[in-house]
Amino acid sequence: MSSQKCFVKGSAVPSPIAKGSIRLYSMRFCPFAQRARLVLNAKGIKHDIINISLKDKPEWFLEKNPFGLVPTLETPAGEVIYESPITCEYLDEVYPEKKLFPSSPYAKAQQKMMMEQFSKVIPYFYKIPAAENKGEDVSGLKAELKEKFAKLNEELVNKKSKFFGGNSITMIDYMLWPFFERLEVFDLTHCLDETAELKKWTEYMAEDPAVKATRHSVNTYKGFYKTYAEGNADYDYGL
Amino acid sequence: MSSQKCFVKGSAVPSPIAKGSIRLYSMRFCPFAQRARLVLNAKGIKHDIINISLKDKPEWFLEKNPFGLVPTLETPAGEVIYESPITCEYLDEVYPEKKLFPSSPYAKAQQKMMMEQFSKVIPYFYKIPAAENKGEDVSGLKAELKEKFAKLNEELVNKKSKFFGGNSITMIDYMLWPFFERLEVFDLTHCLDETAELKKWTEYMAEDPAVKATRHSVNTYKGFYKTYAEGNADYDYGL
Repeated sequence: MSSQKCFVKGSAVPSPIAKGSIRLYSMRFCPFAQRARLVLNAKGIKHDIINISLKDKPEWFLEKNPFGLVPTLETPAGEVIYESPITCEYLDEVYPEKKLFPSSPYAKAQQKMMMEQFSKVIPYFYKIPAAENKGEDVSGLKAELKEKFAKLNEELVNKKSKFFGGNSITMIDYMLWPFFERLEVFDLTHCLDETAELKKWTEYMAEDPAVKATRHSVNTYKGFYKTYAEGNADYDYGL
Repeated sequence: MSSQKCFVKGSAVPSPIAKGSIRLYSMRFCPFAQRARLVLNAKGIKHDIINISLKDKPEWFLEKNPFGLVPTLETPAGEVIYESPITCEYLDEVYPEKKLFPSSPYAKAQQKMMMEQFSKVIPYFYKIPAAENKGEDVSGLKAELKEKFAKLNEELVNKKSKFFGGNSITMIDYMLWPFFERLEVFDLTHCLDETAELKKWTEYMAEDPAVKATRHSVNTYKGFYKTYAEGNADYDYGL
């Protein structure tokens, strides 16, 4: 379902959401939407996916969510939820099987504080490729990114665990993952060279079934991001 | 307890946190810290408050929270929680009496989406007074703020309720309130003139015991913000 071509301005309204299912409005290459796709997959939630052209949004989509953001969730009752951390927490609360957030309020708060810190790292994943495309020197940005990675590495070292919430994958891992998945696409894997535990984490993550189910090949990503950098994003790239 | 002078660099470490109590590191005039103070008050949570000089932070505070932010919570077990929405949700989860977030995951998600939207309104409460102090024309900024207020007003009109989560105060009201409390301080009350329901909301809020317990007089705020605008914030102003 997630490999459907995107809906554009003028596209017909999609069919109603099946009872007992939930709908995700997504874009195949969006790391924020991937967070919701990871959670839907990991928890085994019955869902369908409507891909949206982010440059040419269907009118009926903007009526549902005036901000036009992906990920957006919609229930058969017409409830609409957006902002990736909010969609993921909603899914975790509504579908109690395989809880991804820890049950302890403090452990959950810790994951949210980490997400808040990580939100300041995310811009690097955009700034570095953009600057490189313009032929600018990115050594300073890369050094800053490595410092952020060192902090994340320290977390794993202090916790002595494979994942950020312990020895199994929890919500925080899925919130961080989409950005790490794209390191290879932008030739940034070497930024992990001095952070052994974090590198190992990316290897453990790559084995996870939900990660496998939601990722694209490096070549597909490279093809898409090339169209994106050229200012003419092809959201259906590779279909 | 909240009217204690602030701790500065070099201040002695405060006494241990009493068993069964929780500590809030705060600054008397910080709207984000006020969110946590509102929740502590509304839920009747036993707590003490340590005020922090934000320009001259105690070393032991930076050890607890390297970001040096208020609000920061600390439990007798040494657990540290920061970022105002995270501290408030933590308090609501740990202290089940008088739940402030709705129990429905969707209603809770709606409050969080609204907070996310409101985070884009908050800068106006800083930009307008700052621009006015520099003698700049703020009519454009004020018009933008009024548009944001019109959106909030619409929420109340659509809900046909006194507060944003229904006819009693819930978490979202306390998250928004500190910024509205400061409108009069910056002579911005007139920005509510065309949004009758929102204005009425501020009047209902002003009656709330937690609001009354955490607010300062307009004169005290004005005195503090004068020192702040002059680049020499007096965190103990009025004590």
